[in-house]
Amino acid sequence: MSVGVARRPRGDDNHPVKFCSQCGSSQLDFRIPEGDSLPRFVCADCGEIHYQNPKVVVGCLPTYDERVLLCLRAIEPRKGLWTLPAGFLENGESVVAGAARETFEEAGAHVDVGELYTLISLPHISQIYMVFRASLRRPEFAPGPESLDVRLFAEHEIPWERIAFRTIGRTLRNYFLDRKLGGFPTRVSSLERRMPAPPDLRGAG
Amino acid sequence: MSVGVARRPRGDDNHPVKFCSQCGSSQLDFRIPEGDSLPRFVCADCGEIHYQNPKVVVGCLPTYDERVLLCLRAIEPRKGLWTLPAGFLENGESVVAGAARETFEEAGAHVDVGELYTLISLPHISQIYMVFRASLRRPEFAPGPESLDVRLFAEHEIPWERIAFRTIGRTLRNYFLDRKLGGFPTRVSSLERRMPAPPDLRGAG
Repeated sequence: MSVGVARRPRGDDNHPVKFCSQCGSSQLDFRIPEGDSLPRFVCADCGEIHYQNPKVVVGCLPTYDERVLLCLRAIEPRKGLWTLPAGFLENGESVVAGAARETFEEAGAHVDVGELYTLISLPHISQIYMVFRASLRRPEFAPGPESLDVRLFAEHEIPWERIAFRTIGRTLRNYFLDRKLGGFPTRVSSLERRMPAPPDLRGAG
Repeated sequence: MSVGVARRPRGDDNHPVKFCSQCGSSQLDFRIPEGDSLPRFVCADCGEIHYQNPKVVVGCLPTYDERVLLCLRAIEPRKGLWTLPAGFLENGESVVAGAARETFEEAGAHVDVGELYTLISLPHISQIYMVFRASLRRPEFAPGPESLDVRLFAEHEIPWERIAFRTIGRTLRNYFLDRKLGGFPTRVSSLERRMPAPPDLRGAG
């Protein structure tokens, strides 16, 4: 997931449509098209309907010799925190190919992508996270342009207080629990908008 | 999945950006933004980057008493062919909520959504299909506006030659096989562009 300077995070383009991308008109209505059930931005001039849909983030949980590969983020959001290699699925690629690509881009690592492990919906930001278990072919990796560092962590070394995203924290917690239980079912869940902590709990953990 | 008259199928909006949706400029470059690795439509006037990403189709494989619920499509594409209830995931909803919504909209059926069953990438059209196993609460259903008919089919009644989409055919074939095998693992796969059949095989099956 890349972000540039002074612009929205990549992929965050679910903002209002101000001009029609097909005819350039500024006459956009936000209404329910005929035969549809939800309001869309519809061009009053050419009739183009501008659908906006959730984006898919694909990533890997790469392991080598009982250890998990994490990347230290070099970019916002959550610069300086640790994450699994993951990013937006691109047009024209399969989910497995996307997960492998992100792992190479962010961690310089070649992996064999295994089973789908977590599928987490984030409805408040219209994203779907998919994390696959993966095996590092060799203990060879290096930070890509979006990472400051890449390391293998044993379970007791995981920097739990410095994990970048709730989806990643949940995936890692599930993983170490399932590893003890001896199986890795595909885990489907949702994360809602994070509630602000009440004042007396802020900073408590 | 709804389509209107004389327009592209809903969701098929991965076509070139001709005008910037934020400033209305017609000066769109197709280039690799700084820090990115793939070309995007970038506004030369305001700098807006127009990302285009795969869309997610969510649906259910609803069963009741060993039978599977199928819908007869009332709309293009594949009008007059049978399918599982499925459609585009909407912003602000989880994959499970979307699968349940589509099942109610297309089949008038209330279901308890179960495990993720198939996850099929269609890279040539930049779509991801997710089908969940689901239980009909009661044998009550009725065609919604996008369906001509809705019926429960035993395995030997499935209209295999009249299934609307390859994703759905694959899901149904897997399902009846896995049912015999006694388990339903999550099945991740891809379908590539369909090759045209050689002339002497056309119509052969």
